[in-house]
Amino acid sequence: MREVAIIGVGMTRFGELWNQSLRDIFVEAALKAIDDAGVDHIDSMYVGSMSPGLYVGQEHIGSMLADYLGVAPIPSSRVESACASGSVALRQAIFEVASGYSDIVLAGGVEKMNDGQDTSYILATAADQEYEAYFGVTFPGLYAMIARAHMHRYGTTSEQLAAVAVKNHANGYLNPDAQFQMKITKETVLNSTMVADPLHLFDCSPVTDGGAAAIVVPLEMAGKFKGHPVKILATAQSSDTIALHSRSDLSTVPAIGIAAEKAYKMAGLTPDKIDLAEVHDCFTIAEICATEELGFVEKGKGGEAAESGMTALDGKIPINSSGGLKSKGHPVGATGIAQIAEIVHQLRGEAGDRQVKNARIGLTQNMGGSGGSCTIHILEAM
Amino acid sequence: MREVAIIGVGMTRFGELWNQSLRDIFVEAALKAIDDAGVDHIDSMYVGSMSPGLYVGQEHIGSMLADYLGVAPIPSSRVESACASGSVALRQAIFEVASGYSDIVLAGGVEKMNDGQDTSYILATAADQEYEAYFGVTFPGLYAMIARAHMHRYGTTSEQLAAVAVKNHANGYLNPDAQFQMKITKETVLNSTMVADPLHLFDCSPVTDGGAAAIVVPLEMAGKFKGHPVKILATAQSSDTIALHSRSDLSTVPAIGIAAEKAYKMAGLTPDKIDLAEVHDCFTIAEICATEELGFVEKGKGGEAAESGMTALDGKIPINSSGGLKSKGHPVGATGIAQIAEIVHQLRGEAGDRQVKNARIGLTQNMGGSGGSCTIHILEAM
Repeated sequence: MREVAIIGVGMTRFGELWNQSLRDIFVEAALKAIDDAGVDHIDSMYVGSMSPGLYVGQEHIGSMLADYLGVAPIPSSRVESACASGSVALRQAIFEVASGYSDIVLAGGVEKMNDGQDTSYILATAADQEYEAYFGVTFPGLYAMIARAHMHRYGTTSEQLAAVAVKNHANGYLNPDAQFQMKITKETVLNSTMVADPLHLFDCSPVTDGGAAAIVVPLEMAGKFKGHPVKILATAQSSDTIALHSRSDLSTVPAIGIAAEKAYKMAGLTPDKIDLAEVHDCFTIAEICATEELGFVEKGKGGEAAESGMTALDGKIPINSSGGLKSKGHPVGATGIAQIAEIVHQLRGEAGDRQVKNARIGLTQNMGGSGGSCTIHILEAM
Repeated sequence: MREVAIIGVGMTRFGELWNQSLRDIFVEAALKAIDDAGVDHIDSMYVGSMSPGLYVGQEHIGSMLADYLGVAPIPSSRVESACASGSVALRQAIFEVASGYSDIVLAGGVEKMNDGQDTSYILATAADQEYEAYFGVTFPGLYAMIARAHMHRYGTTSEQLAAVAVKNHANGYLNPDAQFQMKITKETVLNSTMVADPLHLFDCSPVTDGGAAAIVVPLEMAGKFKGHPVKILATAQSSDTIALHSRSDLSTVPAIGIAAEKAYKMAGLTPDKIDLAEVHDCFTIAEICATEELGFVEKGKGGEAAESGMTALDGKIPINSSGGLKSKGHPVGATGIAQIAEIVHQLRGEAGDRQVKNARIGLTQNMGGSGGSCTIHILEAM
């Protein structure tokens, strides 16, 4: 098995990109990654995207985006695992390079959500259509159930949920690519509209257009290119019941812990060796569950971690230095690769005002649905 | 790079499967493949599916199908390249096994098309949404343009197109899993409704529900299992402009030739060494183009090949012994794996009444859209 590295990353600004189509967005991100890496060609590409069919009436975007990027006739495929689609694209690039079939592979992600006619319906296709979505459940509703169970079991408070949002907006304020580059207070969250009790509007990540891309090469070739390489120490993925009602414990997201255990084993690391993490805070409760399942704190202590400043930019384990899905935005298919882009920038010391000190090892955690799938990557500075 | 083999395949009957949902169909095919292989677990899985979001309102089928197959928490992702989705799933399984990350990987494909409200709209999302589908083009229309150009340039006749359908129905008549297990005549085709001139109804593959699966393992482990192994000699994929109007020559599908050249090089073979092939006859003209681009005959001679019996079951190079997409059916995401299942059965000598004599090396050619993507695999009996 060849070891692999990332030598370039790129992303668009996240937000309501009314002047750019899905193809424009992807091509911008891909060209930035190609330029960052300094490669003169790519051998193959993968695109993570959750639902271009429902959002913009376009499937077959592997072909379409290779065409518009000007790289046909190279192999180009789309991969999908709902909101974990981006990180799954990265996994395919890793496997293809590790296997020796290709040397330079682009892993990208894109979603054009604001053109969708009914984004709640479209996002709900990531839940169980027959047993959840059909009966009207939405994702705020599903995560609200997780939040309620967490509150019931561990005494987690609305203030602790709000602390996650406040922290992530503080970080996103420092990120020029963030959709909501603004600070908020605990009151902003607690006084905002209730979406699905106990989740307020500011507990929820937004609807976002955006794209991101990364270039994967064999580690032994990484020095040949302009791009400053970052080594991939681990890639791990898990699945779980797609429907929340099938799980024995609603107060957590077990797929995160299962993938984390595999990732730590592959990297030969324990959680205390991680310097920073980008986690999937589609809702504030999701970050709390991730903080626990990744082993940064004990079960039930994720809310305290955010409230105490432990996960702040200058805390013991900074989480979502980019602003996270909450502030940076959540173009679902792109999110997994945007997390990678943030960690690569941090490990290279290029994160500007939001740079985490002494960042050597970073982790990304990306998930689909209410935790029906989860992907974790661990990266190391070189 | 580890060499890889397929040790088990399975498929459902293809057709209008009103009593089975998408999940039922996939699980049936997957369990058949697992049983055929004799494995007691799988490490990971991929599902090729073009548009479960538009067909049945369900994305995130990687999670959903791992759940319903009872194999969670293993990694499970969907891959999509329109009608080439199945074969792209196989490629991902090959890469994952070849890389050493996993040993036993299931590659499946599924589509539940008959539940779709507007299948012409859904299939057209595989074309260029902004420049083709939006203006009303459908796939019969696109392939009709290819057929017209082929007729104009090479003198191909409607009778030659019909000969493809007649041959494939003759083969499908012998296949108990085929959607249309019936013989037809040239007159059946020529007297059928004109769909998009020069393509009659019987020049077109049908709308189909179905699933298929294959189990991929390292070649060196293949002997440990019950399933009779077949070696994978090559996997190749290409892309092209998604829109037909962007190509310089409409009388062919260049992506096939590009992928074929890579596949033959990887396998160290020339076209004359192929004993049989399953090709993507979504329309009769597509098989004619494939016969040429795969190097079985010169450009322009694909119609003659069908008419002369060269590609019949007892011909020099039998094509679509399964009945092809035309007679066996075309559940788009499953087609690429169903082609693999046919070649595996043939190379093992298990194809019953439609067995090709002395079948040692088989090829599959699967494509997406009007040839915006193409995947080719070459398999060898062991």
